[in-house]
Formats: sequence, structure tokens, C-alpha cells
Amino acid sequence: MENSRRRGRPGHDQSAVLTAAVRLFNTHGYDATSMFDIAESLGITKSTLYHHVSSKEQLLTMAVDRALGALEDAAREAVGSGDPATVRLRLLIRRSVLVLAERLEFVTLLLRVHGNTVAEQQAVARRRAFDRIVTDLVKQAQAEGGVRADVDPATAARLIFGMVNSLIEWYRPDRGAPESIADTVSDLAFDGLRSR
Amino acid sequence: MENSRRRGRPGHDQSAVLTAAVRLFNTHGYDATSMFDIAESLGITKSTLYHHVSSKEQLLTMAVDRALGALEDAAREAVGSGDPATVRLRLLIRRSVLVLAERLEFVTLLLRVHGNTVAEQQAVARRRAFDRIVTDLVKQAQAEGGVRADVDPATAARLIFGMVNSLIEWYRPDRGAPESIADTVSDLAFDGLRSR
Repeated sequence: MENSRRRGRPGHDQSAVLTAAVRLFNTHGYDATSMFDIAESLGITKSTLYHHVSSKEQLLTMAVDRALGALEDAAREAVGSGDPATVRLRLLIRRSVLVLAERLEFVTLLLRVHGNTVAEQQAVARRRAFDRIVTDLVKQAQAEGGVRADVDPATAARLIFGMVNSLIEWYRPDRGAPESIADTVSDLAFDGLRSR
Repeated sequence: MENSRRRGRPGHDQSAVLTAAVRLFNTHGYDATSMFDIAESLGITKSTLYHHVSSKEQLLTMAVDRALGALEDAAREAVGSGDPATVRLRLLIRRSVLVLAERLEFVTLLLRVHGNTVAEQQAVARRRAFDRIVTDLVKQAQAEGGVRADVDPATAARLIFGMVNSLIEWYRPDRGAPESIADTVSDLAFDGLRSR
């Protein structure tokens, strides 16, 4: 109860704190951002900030979870469905683009995390698990004949997700609706630039 | 003369200084790295470091130039040749992959530069000019019928170079010779994953 009363302070709920923290992490780097900086950007004291979250690491974990949770949901669905692997791979690419477009700040943070803290290492480990799922899907799609067999599956997975992840560098809503970008990415991933 | 004598000190020539600086910039960020850090990592004094280079900004400019100079050479060749735009686009993609694989540390720094100093803004402006060349090539290739007309050329350019630039995240020599990765990227860019 105590907890929910504290978190309920108008204007400074945990979600607003998270948004402010992620903005600072993305602009100045996770290491270079202090709890004081986060409090200051919200116009609250550090002590008030600690009513909402217990540590900077907690903020990183929550932020990364917003990105990875959604990507892992997409992966789970792609792995679990009864469709051919080629269809599931295409679906996973589309859904990942939608997650990036909709949670751009959170995915940006996720993709820039490299560091040494426990929270950062957990994020990196979850990213690797996601990458392995994509590589496995490429392998299965090759085995069923839907994807060309002359590319190394891990390299193909890295390159296709290089295309997907590039959204953090350039995507803005005025550059296309998420659904339309998702179509373009999956079309290019499967059929390439060549006109047919 | 004075200058060349100073730069000639064995073991700490300008190129070794540059390599050490880029490693630190990429690991800790450009802002977070001081001339003292660079001197320390080379086991020399700050005053000796200033015999080789005049400022941290000069190091950034030199590093970015190693990456952009090579990419701009590739772009100039692709723009200038008499081949169809589709052939030239494919060539530019291949050559860019080779530049990334061969100058990975320098391109990594280039792609991470966002900042506010003059040196950083010049790097960003040169990157944008390169991106415009790619977009123009995609447009020309669409006009001549070699590239599908149903994708926005700027979006296509961003996605294809998302694939190229992803090398900074994962490329290592044991993951394939540069030539072979360049073939895979240009094959996927033009023909996609689909087996035919």
C-alpha cells in the first residue's frame, strides 16, 4: 500500500521516471548518467526519485525489459506456430520492426548496452538468445527449401537484423507508418532490391 | 622539418597514437576520453602526446577521415563510372563492406559520432552526403528498371546500409573473409533470402 501510494504521486509515476531515464541514457550514455541527473531532469529531488526506483540498474533492467519483452513475445509466437519456418521467419521480421518503431527509445538503449554491470550483461545474454532463435529459424527455413542454402544462417540472421535494427538510427513517424516500414523490410529481406 | 622529426619518434608515431585513441573512443566514448587517458594508454606523457597531435579533435578528424575517405573514394568511383546505376549500386555496396571489414575500428567510431563539436558535426555532414549519393543511385537504378520501383529510395538506401553497417556490431575475421561477406551482403541486398 505504502508502495502504491508513493508511486502514485501525480506526474512522477514510475513510467515517467523510466522515460526520462532512458532519454538521458541514450543521449549521454548509461555510465555517464547519474541518479542525480535523472532526478534533476524531472525537477524532483534524488530522495523523491528513490521512492520510485531503487537504483539506476533497476531502471536499465526495466527499460531493457520493455524492448526485449516485446521481442521475446514475437519470437515465442514465431517459434510456436504451426506455419512453415519461412512464414514464421517473415512474421518475426515484421513483428520486430513493429516493436522497434513503437518502442524505439527502449530498443535504442538495448542495442547500445555493452557494459559490465549485471543488468547490462543480462541484457546482452537475452539479446544473444533472441539472435539464436533467428538463426535457428533461418536454418529451418533453409532445410524446408524456402530460404537460399548458399548463405551461412548466422550471417544471414545478423544481416537481416542489421536492416531491422537500423531503424534506431533513422526511423521517425514522418518516414512511414510502422506497418508500411515493416512491409518494406520484410519485402527487401526476402526479395531484395532487384526488380522482377 | 621540426614537425617530421617530432612525429618520427620510434614506437609512438602518429598512426600508433591514432589507433590507441580510436580504441579508447570506441570503448569509453569520445566525450569520456581525455588526452591524458590516451597518453596513459601509450605509456607516454601528455606533453609527449602533444608532440604528435594538437588536440583530441584532431584525432577524431583523422580517424573519421580514415573511414570516410575510403567510403567517399568508393562513392566517387560508383558515381563516375559509365556502368548502369544498378551495377554501380551493387559495386558501392560491395566496396563499402570491404571498407568496413578493413577499417572496422574507424568506421565504428564514425557511426557512433553524434555530438556537438565542430569535428563531430563535420563527420555527420560527410556521412549525410554519402547517404545522399546512395539514395540517388537507388533512384537512378529504379529509373533504369534494375531496382524495384515500389520502395522509397531513401528508405531502401537506409535499410541496405543498415545491413552493411551492422558489420561494426558483429564482424570478426573468423566470421568470413571480407570478400565473401561482401558477396553475401550484395547478394542479399539484390536477391533477398528467398530460394529461387
